[in-house]
Amino acid sequence: MTDTASPALRTAIAYYDAWTSHDLDGAMKYIADDIVCDAPAGRLEGADAYRNFMAPFVGMLTGSTMIAAFGDDDTALVMYDTHTVPVRNAPGAECVTVENGKITYSRFVFDRAPFDAARNDAS
Amino acid sequence: MTDTASPALRTAIAYYDAWTSHDLDGAMKYIADDIVCDAPAGRLEGADAYRNFMAPFVGMLTGSTMIAAFGDDDTALVMYDTHTVPVRNAPGAECVTVENGKITYSRFVFDRAPFDAARNDAS
Repeated sequence: MTDTASPALRTAIAYYDAWTSHDLDGAMKYIADDIVCDAPAGRLEGADAYRNFMAPFVGMLTGSTMIAAFGDDDTALVMYDTHTVPVRNAPGAECVTVENGKITYSRFVFDRAPFDAARNDAS
Repeated sequence: MTDTASPALRTAIAYYDAWTSHDLDGAMKYIADDIVCDAPAGRLEGADAYRNFMAPFVGMLTGSTMIAAFGDDDTALVMYDTHTVPVRNAPGAECVTVENGKITYSRFVFDRAPFDAARNDAS
């Protein structure tokens, strides 16, 4: 399933392995300074904004399982199932563009509804 | 980006082309009778349940753009951006297992939050 001949996928998996190990500093090594990320809540621009978006999510992460991962020279597409404190199964998918070993663009898809529901239940 | 050497991806794309053309009958030709689909709202079992899930979505679809599509012998992973009446940009991702030209399992990820918001605005 995982095509390790794909340079983009190697970067995407190294990035995934880092953040799912709670190593946000390590993960950010694979993020370009000028990353653009289209996430469910809108567009994030720049590594600082991206890190601020990821940090709370990584903080509540208890585990993750890779479902599928593919790539070619400059694009990787992964789907995984994250396990978090508020939401037990929170699958997500990322399509990333990789240049020189760094993710320059990310399209990120996940369902915000169970997180919204958990927040409402807690309040 | 699209590896047409992948049998699973050929099926996934034929299925995608059909439902994004509002051809639900044509799309269902690629769905196994005993399909299992893990969707954001829960598990769907069987082609009838799957069709009932897809029909309202296809009914409000105004267009779709494929973002990335990869596959191997039995697995395909696609991400696309659908355009719908209530939500202008509603990206989704599907990881499907294909056996004998039919999708037997689908893991489907999209963000329900904007659809929930549109429903609340309308009510």
